Order: sequence, then structure tokens, then C-alpha cells
Amino acid sequence: MKNSNPPKISDFPQGNENIEYERFFFGKSWLKQLTSLKELNVPLFNVTFEPSCRNNWHTHSGGQILIAIGGKGLYQERGKKAQLMMPGDIIEIAPNLEHWHGAAPHDWFSHLAITCNPQNNQNIWMEPVSNEDYQQAFNSTNK
Amino acid sequence: MKNSNPPKISDFPQGNENIEYERFFFGKSWLKQLTSLKELNVPLFNVTFEPSCRNNWHTHSGGQILIAIGGKGLYQERGKKAQLMMPGDIIEIAPNLEHWHGAAPHDWFSHLAITCNPQNNQNIWMEPVSNEDYQQAFNSTNK
Repeated sequence: MKNSNPPKISDFPQGNENIEYERFFFGKSWLKQLTSLKELNVPLFNVTFEPSCRNNWHTHSGGQILIAIGGKGLYQERGKKAQLMMPGDIIEIAPNLEHWHGAAPHDWFSHLAITCNPQNNQNIWMEPVSNEDYQQAFNSTNK
Repeated sequence: MKNSNPPKISDFPQGNENIEYERFFFGKSWLKQLTSLKELNVPLFNVTFEPSCRNNWHTHSGGQILIAIGGKGLYQERGKKAQLMMPGDIIEIAPNLEHWHGAAPHDWFSHLAITCNPQNNQNIWMEPVSNEDYQQAFNSTNK
């Protein structure tokens, strides 16, 4: 059933379908905010991607940290080879670095995401990752 | 063997024995720093506690976030009932709040720990959690 909820692939709650950002994603994703204490300045989310789902190329002016917790994912920086993300992997994304992330073609994927320096952070969304570029990114990981 | 490495209880690397902070802990713990990009302002660590290991009462002037990833742990704020921490649980600790955390009496435990507002954060370490108070804290969780 296309619109069913995601399978349980980690110990973390998966939240609701990510409607707010769906225009920046190819495919369906689910979003759950995990922290709420504003003064800590560490907004923390769980993002779950259906197989083949990925977000557009984008940047965060404050940077971002991804913590893989379930399934199999992909991460790519502009001009670099894509890398697989498996549970336990951490990706540190410098401010203003162009990148995208999402699930592998045949696997669900969940990562925790931290918005760094949220006091001033702004996201810039760019073009989608084409099917051809996405497939090539995955193939280049040899997995 | 008392000094052997911890069992694998999560997907995250567990690092080395936590010698730097051992004077603030009862029992053995292991520490692995997982991020290094200073400008992100989110120092992230994996802390693994042997059964019964816990830290002293303490505060963080910038606050802290704990993300339980393996085993069974305990968290207590001064004047409140202790709570169990199971994988997938998140604890947000406000600045200057007196608290302690550690493993349950018969279980290993790992949590990720984020030092919030690291630009100005300072920790204040206080008295150990006595064996009696620790056992009472665990018993009060009814687990």
C-alpha cells in the first residue's frame, strides 16, 4: 500500500509524513521532532526515507549533522563521490556545503538530523537529484 | 575479566576507557568523540557505562542532550524520581540542572551525549550517588 506507514527500522519514533518539506524531496519521507527545549540550541529530528527517496541539493548556513540509525542511505557532497550511510555512521556537513541525502534505491533509511547553529541557520534549496545522477551515485558506492 | 572492553550494544563505536573523567564516575566507562568540526557547535560523544556505573551529580551551564542507543540506563534530576533510559529515548537537560546518569545495576548502557552551547559551557561536578541512593533510584522505576 503506497501510503502506509514506514516499517520500524530503528528504536526512534518516526512521526508523520513530511508534508512541510515534500516539495524539496523526491519520494515520501517521515519527520519527527525529538527535542523541544529551545535554549539548548540543538533541534534534533528523525527523518525516514522510503526506498529511492532523497532530498534536493541544498545547503544549511549553520551546518548539519546526520546520525544514521536504521536501514541504508546515501549522502553526497557536490563534486565528490557519494557515500553509503549505515547505522552508526555520522556525517558532519560544514556550513554552506552543497549536498543531498536519502535512502538507497531498495532500502528504507532513517537518520537523526541536527540543525547546527539554529540561531542564524538558513537553508537554501536547489535542483532535484535526477534519476540518472541518483543511480550513478549509488552505483559508485559499489554496494 | 574486569578490564576487558565493553560488549557491543549499539551500532556506534565505543572508544577507549574514559580515564579523563573517571574521578567523576563510580565504575568504568568508555568514551568516543564522534564529531570534530568545531564550527558546528555540536560536540557529540558516545558514552558506555558498565553495569552499576554512573556519574556524580553534576550540572552543565550550557545544558546537555542524551540519546539512548543501547542497553538499559538510568537518569535522575535532583528532587525527582529516576527514569529508565531505553534505546530511542531522548533526555533534554536544561542549563544548570543538577542530575546524574548511568547504567542500570545489571545492564551495560550506551548513550550519545551532546554538549549544548559549547562556546560557553562549563560543567560543575558534585558528590557521588551513594550505593543506597542508586539502588533506590533504580527500584523506584519498577523495572
